[in-house]
Amino acid sequence: MGKTLFFKKGVSPQKTLMIIRKGKQTIEFTDKPKIIGFGSVVGKKEGEGPLAEWFDAIHDDVSMGGETWEKAEAQLQKESLAEAMRKANIKSQDVDLVFAGDLLNQCVSSSYGLKDYGIPFLGQYGACSTMAQTMAMASIMVESGVSNISSAVTSSHFCSAERQFRFPLQYGGQRTPTSQWTVTGSGSVILSNSKDKGLCVSDVCIGKIIDMGITDANNMGAAMAGAAADSIFQYLKDTNTNPSDYDLILTGDLGEVGTNLMYELLEKENINIRKRHSDCGLLIFDKDDPDIHAGGSGCGCSASVVCSYIMKKMVKGELNSVLFAATGALMSPTIVQQGESIPGISHIVHLQNID
Amino acid sequence: MGKTLFFKKGVSPQKTLMIIRKGKQTIEFTDKPKIIGFGSVVGKKEGEGPLAEWFDAIHDDVSMGGETWEKAEAQLQKESLAEAMRKANIKSQDVDLVFAGDLLNQCVSSSYGLKDYGIPFLGQYGACSTMAQTMAMASIMVESGVSNISSAVTSSHFCSAERQFRFPLQYGGQRTPTSQWTVTGSGSVILSNSKDKGLCVSDVCIGKIIDMGITDANNMGAAMAGAAADSIFQYLKDTNTNPSDYDLILTGDLGEVGTNLMYELLEKENINIRKRHSDCGLLIFDKDDPDIHAGGSGCGCSASVVCSYIMKKMVKGELNSVLFAATGALMSPTIVQQGESIPGISHIVHLQNID
Repeated sequence: MGKTLFFKKGVSPQKTLMIIRKGKQTIEFTDKPKIIGFGSVVGKKEGEGPLAEWFDAIHDDVSMGGETWEKAEAQLQKESLAEAMRKANIKSQDVDLVFAGDLLNQCVSSSYGLKDYGIPFLGQYGACSTMAQTMAMASIMVESGVSNISSAVTSSHFCSAERQFRFPLQYGGQRTPTSQWTVTGSGSVILSNSKDKGLCVSDVCIGKIIDMGITDANNMGAAMAGAAADSIFQYLKDTNTNPSDYDLILTGDLGEVGTNLMYELLEKENINIRKRHSDCGLLIFDKDDPDIHAGGSGCGCSASVVCSYIMKKMVKGELNSVLFAATGALMSPTIVQQGESIPGISHIVHLQNID
Repeated sequence: MGKTLFFKKGVSPQKTLMIIRKGKQTIEFTDKPKIIGFGSVVGKKEGEGPLAEWFDAIHDDVSMGGETWEKAEAQLQKESLAEAMRKANIKSQDVDLVFAGDLLNQCVSSSYGLKDYGIPFLGQYGACSTMAQTMAMASIMVESGVSNISSAVTSSHFCSAERQFRFPLQYGGQRTPTSQWTVTGSGSVILSNSKDKGLCVSDVCIGKIIDMGITDANNMGAAMAGAAADSIFQYLKDTNTNPSDYDLILTGDLGEVGTNLMYELLEKENINIRKRHSDCGLLIFDKDDPDIHAGGSGCGCSASVVCSYIMKKMVKGELNSVLFAATGALMSPTIVQQGESIPGISHIVHLQNID
């Protein structure tokens, strides 16, 4: 059958399980899928930032030795999944499903990056919320018994994103103060139905599309803030918990502007998360870097931060309960040029250490 | 919370369920999610074709009264989901999840078309395999107890696709004999955990990405044939069934060229499906139409055919077991221009009448 790889696996035993769907948008797991491996691969700028020591690999050459930015980004995904599988001590044949997506037109860095692994593939589009979306999907597949081992992968690349969403690099255009710097990076997670204790996904919340009427494509943070606030509000309500029940509430890439807007929106509902909130876009780069403006962004932003710094801290026991709320702006340059506003979405994954 | 709509729903009862994962890629359901509604909305050319009487709505004006093709396509999705919900006798507040995707950059017809429904949203990218992919995802969510009611939506639009993948319409370019005509249409399906008998999803098979090395973007059928053959082969093997066990094996949009290649590939494995195979791309338009060349294509092709003709025939009992193998080409114009080949994928949904 051409280049098909046939994997030898037995039939999975019948599984009885329970999933409780709490409230309107949150799904709580009873068995809780285990994170058995994770990997992060980033570019030069990320490797010069405050989280440098936490990444599994840093590529000074962001072309990755390839001919184009799209192929470079595909390579990032290939490598981060390889690293996650290496840590999980498994091979691609052992992975039942891969959920992957990215920002590129027709999500090509995902399909081209992962096609050679021969893992049954489900392309996901959540813009910069993709890390949480793919993890949520993979978790559900494991928890439900559909899959023994599922994976979640995403990426972004500064150069491919600039050319597609804004201008080719050679244009040398000025960027506004509210704009963000797309991270060159990829993160991968492997989830399994292992009965071992440790880092797991405890519950997930699927977001609704929230349109705040923002039309400025240089202010994505504002476009996504409403979605972040909505999903966090909904999650806390569904689970009947408070911000203080979590060590950290981590958004994906709201950046400076979006973060402040989200705080305001939540505080209108009497929810204050300021003391335990961080944003991956504000963690990954040095705040004083004049290029960064409002912070890091892209699918690869939350992916590389979560799949390195956050998960490694959790494995060490320095964090035990993290609410990861990735945020995405569901627009295209075409439709924004047509005068439409930019809707946002936020999916939440609750990462927890289980003793 | 801005424009958020809050829906009033009770907590779902705890559900004990079983899913058996057969073999490597096929997931068999024991409860079998019921299709409680489906809708199809198409454009002028489709409404002049052989299946005209089966569609729920035909728009002679493919601008849908809007200002742009992208907004027109979004409107198609909005309408097909409305029709499916109407038939299911439910409102958007009753739908727990929507899985949707399309061919446009950043899947904008899905997000813009569906955002106002306020249904928790999971963007999917499977290119023209999206109808099967979204139905598979929605089915799994219902079967597993994550969701009571889930929906699957997709679309394509000739004008938005031509501009994005090939040339603006005004260019008036010649199309090759192997090229296909992107369908202007949308299909939606609503699945529920209803205990009623009738049309349901019995099992699904998640495809792998299969790259046959095809580089001609005007010959998508050939690019996808390998994936179709691979998934059908795998499905039959996983389920230990033969083509004769099904009333119909229906591919999405292989068209004339891809169909013949798929037959050849399957026959190398001693599988002959010729007697019970049809292709949505060859059903939706008149074979003698000189514009159509190799057949219809696009996410909306299989979506509008399956969510009208096929499902209506099944409801009438004229078909009882249909293997729907949608196929997608996971490329973008950018990456093909960079010299890459075009990988394909095929997901399978087994539709069955349960007495």
